[in-house]
This record gives sequence, C-alpha cells and structure tokens, in this order.
Amino acid sequence: MLEVSQRGQAMPVSPFRKLLPYAEAARQQGKIVYPLNIGQPDVLTPPEMLDAVRHADVKVLGYAPGAGTDSYRRKLETYYQRAGIPARFEHIMVTTAGSEAIHFAMLTCLNPGDEIIVAEPFYGTYTAFAIAAGVSIVAVTAHIEDGFALPPLADFEAVITERTRAILICNPSNPTGYVYRRDELEALLGLCKKHDLYLLSDEAYREYCYDGAQATSALSLAGGEKHVVMLDTISKRYSACGARVGALVTRNPDVWLAAFHFGQMRICPPVLEMLAAEAAADLPASYFDGTRAEYQARRDLTVAALQAMPGVVCPVPGGAFYVIARLPVDDAEKFGQWLLEAFTLDNQTLMLSPANGFYHTPGLGRQEVRLAYVINRTDLAAALTCLAQGLLEYPGRVEPQPAGRVEAAIAS
Amino acid sequence: MLEVSQRGQAMPVSPFRKLLPYAEAARQQGKIVYPLNIGQPDVLTPPEMLDAVRHADVKVLGYAPGAGTDSYRRKLETYYQRAGIPARFEHIMVTTAGSEAIHFAMLTCLNPGDEIIVAEPFYGTYTAFAIAAGVSIVAVTAHIEDGFALPPLADFEAVITERTRAILICNPSNPTGYVYRRDELEALLGLCKKHDLYLLSDEAYREYCYDGAQATSALSLAGGEKHVVMLDTISKRYSACGARVGALVTRNPDVWLAAFHFGQMRICPPVLEMLAAEAAADLPASYFDGTRAEYQARRDLTVAALQAMPGVVCPVPGGAFYVIARLPVDDAEKFGQWLLEAFTLDNQTLMLSPANGFYHTPGLGRQEVRLAYVINRTDLAAALTCLAQGLLEYPGRVEPQPAGRVEAAIAS
Repeated sequence: MLEVSQRGQAMPVSPFRKLLPYAEAARQQGKIVYPLNIGQPDVLTPPEMLDAVRHADVKVLGYAPGAGTDSYRRKLETYYQRAGIPARFEHIMVTTAGSEAIHFAMLTCLNPGDEIIVAEPFYGTYTAFAIAAGVSIVAVTAHIEDGFALPPLADFEAVITERTRAILICNPSNPTGYVYRRDELEALLGLCKKHDLYLLSDEAYREYCYDGAQATSALSLAGGEKHVVMLDTISKRYSACGARVGALVTRNPDVWLAAFHFGQMRICPPVLEMLAAEAAADLPASYFDGTRAEYQARRDLTVAALQAMPGVVCPVPGGAFYVIARLPVDDAEKFGQWLLEAFTLDNQTLMLSPANGFYHTPGLGRQEVRLAYVINRTDLAAALTCLAQGLLEYPGRVEPQPAGRVEAAIAS
Repeated sequence: MLEVSQRGQAMPVSPFRKLLPYAEAARQQGKIVYPLNIGQPDVLTPPEMLDAVRHADVKVLGYAPGAGTDSYRRKLETYYQRAGIPARFEHIMVTTAGSEAIHFAMLTCLNPGDEIIVAEPFYGTYTAFAIAAGVSIVAVTAHIEDGFALPPLADFEAVITERTRAILICNPSNPTGYVYRRDELEALLGLCKKHDLYLLSDEAYREYCYDGAQATSALSLAGGEKHVVMLDTISKRYSACGARVGALVTRNPDVWLAAFHFGQMRICPPVLEMLAAEAAADLPASYFDGTRAEYQARRDLTVAALQAMPGVVCPVPGGAFYVIARLPVDDAEKFGQWLLEAFTLDNQTLMLSPANGFYHTPGLGRQEVRLAYVINRTDLAAALTCLAQGLLEYPGRVEPQPAGRVEAAIAS
C-alpha cells in the first residue's frame, strides 16, 4: 500500500488556520468576520519597498548567491549595527522568510532524534519544523498568572537529557507578547554554555516593544558567539508578510557554513523580494516610531477591552502584536467555532486562534485564545465588542474559578 | 562540544559551484570567464512577467494561501491543460521554486531511512535534499555510450529493497539532456505499481525538447494517479531563475494534503513572484517557439564543436540545455581548475561543471563534464574554442581508449 510518510501524516494544522473553514462559511453567509487569528497586519507596506521592485532595472531575473545578494547583506549589516546587534556581513545568511531560517537552524544544529526545549505556549509552527527535521520538542510551561515570564531555569534544567541540543525562544514572544529581560537571556545562555546547547532566538518582532521597552538580541549577549543562532524576518517588521525574506545570523562559522550549504540546496532566496527588503533596510529608524505607536494603541485598546470583560484573564503583553487571554468558556476551540457558526452582533463576528495549538502539553490552554491586534482600531474595537457579547451568550460559558484552579475545575 | 549536525556536515557542495572560487580569482585577474557551469540562461525574462509586478496594485504585501493564490493555481491549470497534462486546480500546490517541490516530495513520500532510486548521472542537488530528508539515494547507472538512455528495468529491479519507496527521474534530464520516451515512462510506472513505489518526476525543462520531439509528462500516464508526483518550476521555462516559484502536482489527494501541510509550515510562496508567474502562465504557447529555436541552435553549435574535438565523446542531447561530454583528460575537476588557474586564450577561459558531482557512485564521471549551453552563441562559440585549445594544452591530457575501456584505462 502506498502511504504518505509518517512525518507527512504527523504535520499539524496551523493553529491560526484551524477555524478557517468555519470563517469561510460565515463569510459566504454574508457575515463580517474580523480576522484576529493571524498576524497579518493591515498596516501599509512601506511604498519604498514596492517602488524598489517597480523601478528595478531587471532584464534577466537570474539566480542570486545562496546566502543572498551581497548588497542586501551589507544593508542588513548596517541595520543590525544600528540596532546595537553585533552582526557582520559574514554572519548573515539570507533566507526565504523566517520560516526557512527556523528550518535551516533545526537541520543544522540538531540530529534526528535530538531534543529542543521550548517554553510553551510557543509559535505553533515550530512543531511542524521539528517534525520535518525529525527532532523532538520538549516543553517547559510558562503561566498566564506570571504574565508568561521565562519559567525558572530549574524547569529547563530538569528536562535536559543527553539528547538535548538546543533551547529555542521567541523574543518578543509570539504568542504571549512577553519581552525577555537581559538577565533572563543571560541566564539562558549560561545554561546553554553549561550544557553545550545552542540558543536559537527568533527575533521577528524586535522593533515592537511598548512603553519604552527595548528588545535585547541574544546575539548581543557576551560569550554567546558559538551558541547563539538568531532567526529573523522582514515580514512583521515592515508589514511585508508576503515578501518571503528572512535571515539566519550567527557568529559561529561552522553553523553559518552548514546553513549556507542548506541554502545552496535551494539555490537562492526570492530575488525580487530581496530588492524590496534592501529598500526596507534603508528606511530610517524613525519609521518604527509610527508603526510602534500604532501597535501600542491597538494593544492598549485590546487589553483594556479584554480586562473589562467579566471572567477574562489577560496579562499586558510588552511586545509583538499578540495577546493570550483566558476566557470563561468550557473550550476555546469550541467557542471559536461557535462564534463563526452560531453568533453575530449586527452581522459581525470574529475569528480567533484557540491557544491549545500553541501548547505542546496536551490539555493546556483549553480556555485560552491568542488574539492578533493587527487590524485598524475601528475594526478591532468592533471585533472586541463581538467577543464581549459572544462570551455573554455562549452556551458553554463557565464561571471563572480562583486563579490556578481553573484548569482543575474544568477537568473535573 | 557544540557540533554541527551530521546532516549539516554531510551537505555536499553544489557540483556546479565547486569551481566558483577559482573562477572568481580568474575574474579578479581580469580574465573573461564564460560560465558554462550553471543553468542560468542569458535569455531575457519575458517583460510581461516583470510588468505584472511593476503594475500590481499592492498596498499591503500580505500572506498568500499556503498552496499559492487561487488565481495563479487556475492559470497553472490552464497552462497544464494546454500542455496535455491532466492537472486540475486541486492537484496543484504552488511551491517556493522547484527546489521546495523536491524537498516537500521527499518529506511527504519517504520516511527517514527509506530509499529512493535515481538514474545517475543526476541533478547533484537531489543528494542534498535526500540528506536533508534523511533518505538514501540508490543509483542506477546510465551510460554515455547509450546516450544516457533509461537503464534497463532489470537494473532498477535489482536494487529494490523493502526500504525502497520511490523512483525519481528528471525529464528532460538535467544533466544529460535525455528525453524519456513514453514507453520508457510506462515501463517505469509499471515497476512502481508492481512494487508500490512513488514516481517523482522533475519536469522543469518540459518545453525544451529539440528536433520536433515532445516531452511526455509522467502525470499523463494512464493508471499513474496514485503514484505520480510531478515537480515543476518556472525558473528555466521563462528564464526566471530568480523568481522562486514552482509547483508540486499530484492526483493523489493524500500526498497533496501532506505536501500542503508542509506548505502551511512555511506559510506561503513569495507573493510578488507569484504575480510574475501568473503573467508567465498567460504567455501564448508560441512564446516557446522562439526560445526553443534559440536553445536548439545553441545545442547544435555546442555538440558540433564538441564532436569536432579530438578524443571527445558527446551524445546529442534531445532536451533541456545541458550536455555531458567525456574529455580526454585525467580528471575533469583538475582540468576545470586548470582552465581557470593556468589557461587563457586571448585572455578568455571557461568554467564547467565536473560531472563527478552528478554521479552517486564514487569514481564515475571522472573524465566527464556538464556544459550548460545557456549563453549567447557568440560567447558560446568563444567558450568552446577555449575548451578545444585547453584540451590540446592541458598537461593531464590522456589519449582516449576504445569505447567502454576508458575508465578502466584511467583506473589502472
């Protein structure tokens, strides 16, 4: 019998696309569905990026070097230096989006059967990359009551085995919005040095920290040269998700070279979109002042609305553009489906991401959802009004228990 | 000790990039180096493709669906139907170049440790994808004396084990230019059906068959619905190598779905370049008449020149834009390096691909090279003149033995 491979069968459905069929059905019925499920901002892509492609003098759209064009790598170097990140031309390997940076990092740093430790909840797609690379994710749980801060180092140390090869973080975090403090990062690096582990750091949301906070790049940690592999992308930074350009950046020349060989395998990143990325790297740092202010306003609106809903628990995310909230519902996935199938307020509803897809440990996050505050404030406010009303009407509503006892109460 | 993964260490250097450092050094010395090493045509990319991107009304460069935009998939369906290939919208999964189609096909159809049979010489990068996917390539040897025709089925059957899951072909073939006849393909499919194997068919060069020949798509074989996975790309078809858009096409819904889940992992293909691809799919079939005539003229020039060189053996390739030639040299890689380091004719030389990188069996192809006839005829003629003269001057020249005895003579 012809069968699909085991890894093919094991590939998970994206947590932020799980409810998509219901959303499509709702839209076909004429409902307005606000998409809070996916980090696809409605912020305009900088016109400079699109103009660079429009005005490029391309006659033959040929291959680029496997590590990306020299000109883009030089621009990226300048961008990193400006951001206080000690990344040089020779440390930068341009990838096809952040996705490929994650993929190549796993292929390069881990053997099949090796383990990688990730604090949950985490970007659900890491699971897919781990399956593709044949490596096992081992989760350490962060808690909503702590604002999803880095779990105690002892929790990491407790799960280290002889197969552990890396710790993977996302900073600022998708999906929690937590921004790791420098001392937390230093402690993690210390653990990596003690146990000979790589520290993979996904820094896609670097520029989006609020209330004056600044993200610390793992690349800037003293003594991390051999251990740190930074994973980057322009998707979120410039609201250019469709331009599939990212980077794997490391000061470990062996890791760089192996990643480059994986890069040669797929020949080169998309060439037109590297032109757009190059124009983006030229944008002044002030570009982010405007976009950051807009996201901060959206975050404030979202968190205020959530915290005003009876029974909702919602920490204040310090960065990225997501928030995880615990809802007074029996099951967030069922609730999300109900919102799309059975609920409207003035013919409107919303799509959210059930947070169970961001947890590795079965059963966790059953009452939690991830909301992406990436749409304009008018629509965002309308979506949150729908959510508030939906929570009141939902037949599976459960009254919240005192903190820490919710999961137990539901499980019983 | 922190180490790079075993697969990272095992990744091969691209055979067509092996001599690159020597070519760069030669260029820095002011030499003209004709690049016959890589399939990067100098044919203009259709302006319609670039115009489509220039004139696109994009304000937010957002994500596309994981399987590619619906509009592009519909255009591709029309393109395939016109080419006589029974591929429908729902069979088409748009990929980030043909590279990703190969990668996803291996991940989807084979488990780690499984075996895939490939006729050698083959596109060297298949080896890299196999290492990334943890699968083993088992080679069946095609011979230059036979014009690199499909080896006897018995040779395939002899290497089938319980771990064999697939046969991979490239048709028309990179690097040999061989075009598989329908009866050869039917025989291969029969073998796949008998042994429950997938037939992966890389058809990147479909339009480039010469002397009136037409390529047969494996997808068009009767009874192949479950077995055939076709791998495609626009890179070579439209001289748009830098636009990283390809496709995995299969009528097996289980394979399609698993490949789609790998596609969701990396979210979507490059969006601007899908716009270019969409415009390309609208080009009339007559577009290929012009490009095919040009490549045929280049092939004729290349083969005539090679066959006129004393001691050179060169079959006539029926398709793609490569030729493998056996040269009267001790070692083609050494010869290629010598051409770049020690030889010039009127300050010109050429870069070729040593064919050993296209063979899986160690020691094979040592006297062979792959030449890509992708540059204009003036430069191509100059490059071939350099090659002819280089062969006369090369200190490692060996006089050819009667056919079939060359390798033995060299080995002794």
